[in-house]
Amino acid sequence: MSESLVVENIRNAAGESVTLLIEGGRVAGLGSAASLAISDSAERLDGAGRIILPGLVDGHIHLDKTFMGLPFVPHIPGETVAKRIAAERELRRTVSLPVTARGGALIEKIAVLGTVAVRSHVDIDTEIGLKGLEQVLSLKQSHGHLVDIEIVAFPQSGIMRDPGTAELLHKAVAEGADLVGGLDPAGIDDDINGHLDAVFAVAERHNVGVDLHLHDGGPLGAFELRQIAERTIALSLQGRVAVSHAFCLGALDGADFGKTAELLARAEVSIMTNGPGPVPMPPVKPLQAAGVRVFCGSDNIRDAWSPFGNGDLIERAGIICDRQDFRADEDLERAFDLATRASGAVLGRPEPLSIGAPADFILVGCGSVAETLAKRPFDRAVFKAGRKIAEAGRLV
Amino acid sequence: MSESLVVENIRNAAGESVTLLIEGGRVAGLGSAASLAISDSAERLDGAGRIILPGLVDGHIHLDKTFMGLPFVPHIPGETVAKRIAAERELRRTVSLPVTARGGALIEKIAVLGTVAVRSHVDIDTEIGLKGLEQVLSLKQSHGHLVDIEIVAFPQSGIMRDPGTAELLHKAVAEGADLVGGLDPAGIDDDINGHLDAVFAVAERHNVGVDLHLHDGGPLGAFELRQIAERTIALSLQGRVAVSHAFCLGALDGADFGKTAELLARAEVSIMTNGPGPVPMPPVKPLQAAGVRVFCGSDNIRDAWSPFGNGDLIERAGIICDRQDFRADEDLERAFDLATRASGAVLGRPEPLSIGAPADFILVGCGSVAETLAKRPFDRAVFKAGRKIAEAGRLV
Repeated sequence: MSESLVVENIRNAAGESVTLLIEGGRVAGLGSAASLAISDSAERLDGAGRIILPGLVDGHIHLDKTFMGLPFVPHIPGETVAKRIAAERELRRTVSLPVTARGGALIEKIAVLGTVAVRSHVDIDTEIGLKGLEQVLSLKQSHGHLVDIEIVAFPQSGIMRDPGTAELLHKAVAEGADLVGGLDPAGIDDDINGHLDAVFAVAERHNVGVDLHLHDGGPLGAFELRQIAERTIALSLQGRVAVSHAFCLGALDGADFGKTAELLARAEVSIMTNGPGPVPMPPVKPLQAAGVRVFCGSDNIRDAWSPFGNGDLIERAGIICDRQDFRADEDLERAFDLATRASGAVLGRPEPLSIGAPADFILVGCGSVAETLAKRPFDRAVFKAGRKIAEAGRLV
Repeated sequence: MSESLVVENIRNAAGESVTLLIEGGRVAGLGSAASLAISDSAERLDGAGRIILPGLVDGHIHLDKTFMGLPFVPHIPGETVAKRIAAERELRRTVSLPVTARGGALIEKIAVLGTVAVRSHVDIDTEIGLKGLEQVLSLKQSHGHLVDIEIVAFPQSGIMRDPGTAELLHKAVAEGADLVGGLDPAGIDDDINGHLDAVFAVAERHNVGVDLHLHDGGPLGAFELRQIAERTIALSLQGRVAVSHAFCLGALDGADFGKTAELLARAEVSIMTNGPGPVPMPPVKPLQAAGVRVFCGSDNIRDAWSPFGNGDLIERAGIICDRQDFRADEDLERAFDLATRASGAVLGRPEPLSIGAPADFILVGCGSVAETLAKRPFDRAVFKAGRKIAEAGRLV
């Protein structure tokens, strides 16, 4: 898009009347109409007094896993992560719709809810090979006008326990994955050094970032976090490494927490949480106070891991509020920030709604961020690269 | 209503085609059309292949507290229960809409979501007196066609620390409250015996049930639970006493849990949970295994205690699944049961959809209870006493 679009009659999160000027799909100005250089030929759109909020950024999703588009699939129980992995591989063989259809249905669903970018982990193992990756790469082409997709090559079945996976991870990154992932070096692979050697070797050889799943709890998980942070510093990967889940951070004594958080901050390792219900979760404020960036994502959405999930990051921010006992406006804003500014920064996006940033935003009929989180309006106008892509629960 | 209504083309939760016969607002039969004595003059309604599920029963709500109908009210923080009580009393003095308007707006909202009955706690203290009660009693008249209301006279500001409250509780029950409540005998009133003496004296004198709020944690809370159970047995109130929240049950060692659960089961004391996020919650399966009835409710909905909440008990059952790590169909059904059969039993309602029970039910376009919880459809047809009161998110 090269033309100009002016969104009038909107308010910012503080409630002030503002006008947004978009040029070439990017923010060219946001402020009083008088302060903007609006050309006479600019297209004009009435925001109907709604507030403008940054587009939502899902820092952790699994586009290849979802059953979206299929009839309801009852959950197959598995008490351990290892058993669930086996159950998922079993189910995967029978699923009738390809990833392009299921992931595409999920993207359309979340786009309507205001998600403008995602980091998707994609399973890489010696059975599925790079097939899931190829299909998510194809979604990047077919659905990029709705949602930006960043891909993590994710060894869901382990690396050491599934020989051949390390080579596949190299290949995945060579073929288009943006980062390399990992999974419970102790709990799944029983070999902390071996697992981390393999993951960081991919990161180093291909100069990509890292995002590992870590479910291992308590002091064991904390030890692994520190190992990850130390390798991050040793390889000068500061700011490019994230750990997803890191339940352990919610169940440490003060000294272990302090030591671990300090090292994570120094290594600029970010922590992703979805506000899990049945396990401890990383404590948001103490981590932020220690200088650790916390961001959020949906994780599983109607897949072999969970029958639940709808990809609504405004609801997700509210879930994090519930788990963290956030009730005051400034805390609700803090949770919303995890799903916008913080997730965006992890994905390498510019400050939301700053000059030059993609014009990815939503308009909602609420008076503040806090009210938006509390009410979760479904009537959201969603703009991607300056184009309105959804309104009132439907793609336009 | 004396006429007959036949709801055809529906399925039960197992997916079997059934027909529902309603007479005089009550269930007269549910099964194959051939098995029902349907008169020729019966009105007929097409269920469009949807499944029939019991109407939802909210075992814990605060109709008098909600700010529903008002512009968004930012939360005033208070780190302790006592500070929150003070903050709420402060806010209460300035709220411009009466309870009849706010509570009425909440009832209309939850009726559309399929709630057919609630147990509402109503604040009784020496400042507000019985004013809140009078207004909720008036809601019982004005909104009884949408939702049945059971009222607990709730000493939100304590009993011992707010002298005169005990007398008000007697008066409240005499004037129409259905049960007497209580609040943290140790944590708020600093006098376990004094508080419980006062509460159970009201129950005994007026022959009403009891539903106490208990936030006190760990072994202290468990001690109070056992005191409540022992008084319940001593006064032959088995089956008529409930404790709401009882966070302590989620944080006990095995022996303390076992001893407490055994006594609760023997005293037939029911436990209400809303699946709280920031604190331990009563473990559903272990309590049920010990013979304790667990039921659920929404608790605060956009009031001085929380800016969140929407009264959707299908979502609430899902929150409980999240907190209890319930994923398999049978566990999702277990959670749904807390919000239907179990809550209903606590409120003294007959087995849902049994012959003679009120024809209070919902129709949803899902294939099972599990799918309903996972998808949370907003398009629900809601029937109260055999009359359709809502469809597709609106009262009819």
